[in-house]
Amino acid sequence: MPIVTIQVTREGTAPGATSTTAEQKAALIQGVSQLLLDVMGKPFDSTFVVIEEVDLDNWGWHGLPVSELRKRAGRPR
Amino acid sequence: MPIVTIQVTREGTAPGATSTTAEQKAALIQGVSQLLLDVMGKPFDSTFVVIEEVDLDNWGWHGLPVSELRKRAGRPR
Amino acid sequence: MPIVTIQVTREGTAPGATSTTAEQKAALIQGVSQLLLDVMGKPFDSTFVVIEEVDLDNWGWHGLPVSELRKRAGRPR
Amino acid sequence: MPIVTIQVTREGTAPGATSTTAEQKAALIQGVSQLLLDVMGKPFDSTFVVIEEVDLDNWGWHGLPVSELRKRAGRPR
Amino acid sequence: MPIVTIQVTREGTAPGATSTTAEQKAALIQGVSQLLLDVMGKPFDSTFVVIEEVDLDNWGWHGLPVSELRKRAGRPR
Amino acid sequence: MPIVTIQVTREGTAPGATSTTAEQKAALIQGVSQLLLDVMGKPFDSTFVVIEEVDLDNWGWHGLPVSELRKRAGRPR
Repeated sequence: MPIVTIQVTREGTAPGATSTTAEQKAALIQGVSQLLLDVMGKPFDSTFVVIEEVDLDNWGWHGLPVSELRKRAGRPR
Repeated sequence: MPIVTIQVTREGTAPGATSTTAEQKAALIQGVSQLLLDVMGKPFDSTFVVIEEVDLDNWGWHGLPVSELRKRAGRPR
Repeated sequence: MPIVTIQVTREGTAPGATSTTAEQKAALIQGVSQLLLDVMGKPFDSTFVVIEEVDLDNWGWHGLPVSELRKRAGRPR
Repeated sequence: MPIVTIQVTREGTAPGATSTTAEQKAALIQGVSQLLLDVMGKPFDSTFVVIEEVDLDNWGWHGLPVSELRKRAGRPR
Repeated sequence: MPIVTIQVTREGTAPGATSTTAEQKAALIQGVSQLLLDVMGKPFDSTFVVIEEVDLDNWGWHGLPVSELRKRAGRPR
Repeated sequence: MPIVTIQVTREGTAPGATSTTAEQKAALIQGVSQLLLDVMGKPFDSTFVVIEEVDLDNWGWHGLPVSELRKRAGRPR
């Protein structure tokens, strides 16, 4: 009965999108549930997935908020 | 000094509600603090409770977002 | 389909115990599942509970590890 | 720069294993990193994965510790 | 490659602010990254920081939501 | 009443150490509590810190377990 938590920055990565799309979320949920089944035999009905979207000001890397990091350093993802 | 994190889907379960109500949140906080006191002797002033509400698109079960699961399978909670 | 995470220090609170006992863990799981049912109507088969025990050196409060805090300040829990 | 946390019960699911094997852990890490790349374009060097193994006494479902649930209800995973 | 998660109540602590300001978030990210470097030699490019802001109704202490606790007990933070 | 969770790999970074030392843990707890006080005015008695140490096989980066990554790529931290 696995629990998988996926944390990503709140921003668009699909063409024209400004946030993670419903299709991307469904693909993450389907893909990670399949992975748990393939690797560990965990059935679909026992896997929970939670996706957390985090504002760019609230995510830090390289000692900076990502909102700032993007301006300085190009496009880390 | 326990920390209890309660994650639920962001939707109404009380009559007429579209999300967890303030009364339900207060009841969860009171109830879980009492439980820690009863079972482990933890005093009220040392227990933190954090409630996280997760959008239906962001919660997966059975390999599907809950928003989709509800349409197909009735009303799992 | 709630997920409840309970974090406690790794130490005994029952008479003679040096860690949380299996009986205490079962009581926490039963009690918190019942609470989710009573307050929000969540059925038992949709609630996951995870208990995390944390070493006293790894838990901080008042700016000190709990292992140190206990020596100085009596018995916070 | 996603963070993926995978929580599973501490037990064997591969033949002869009594816990998640190093090979299974590597497959989970590889697979979930690939999924983030495929679905959201996240490069491998920006994805962190953390696997947490939880003792059977510390995981609850159906209001019971999994250690107890297995005895009563067959083999939920 | 540390991951630091900072959870705070969603409210203002700077003069005139009604939430954590972008400047405070940047200072937390910079400070905690520096701390990991100083104490454990972790370079800035390997530390992730995630700040989570939690509504006052969703945070419990002393068995009460913080929104209620503030009315009764002055100003715990 | 902040909660700060610090996740690090389980390995030594101090001379001769094979894991995070008690002194390093105390320094992290003291430093992060001070940071919350300096930046947001949070008093020491309202900040909880939890340090989680994660086995090298259980931490993934670049699509690989850190235990494997170290062999191939030098010494990322």
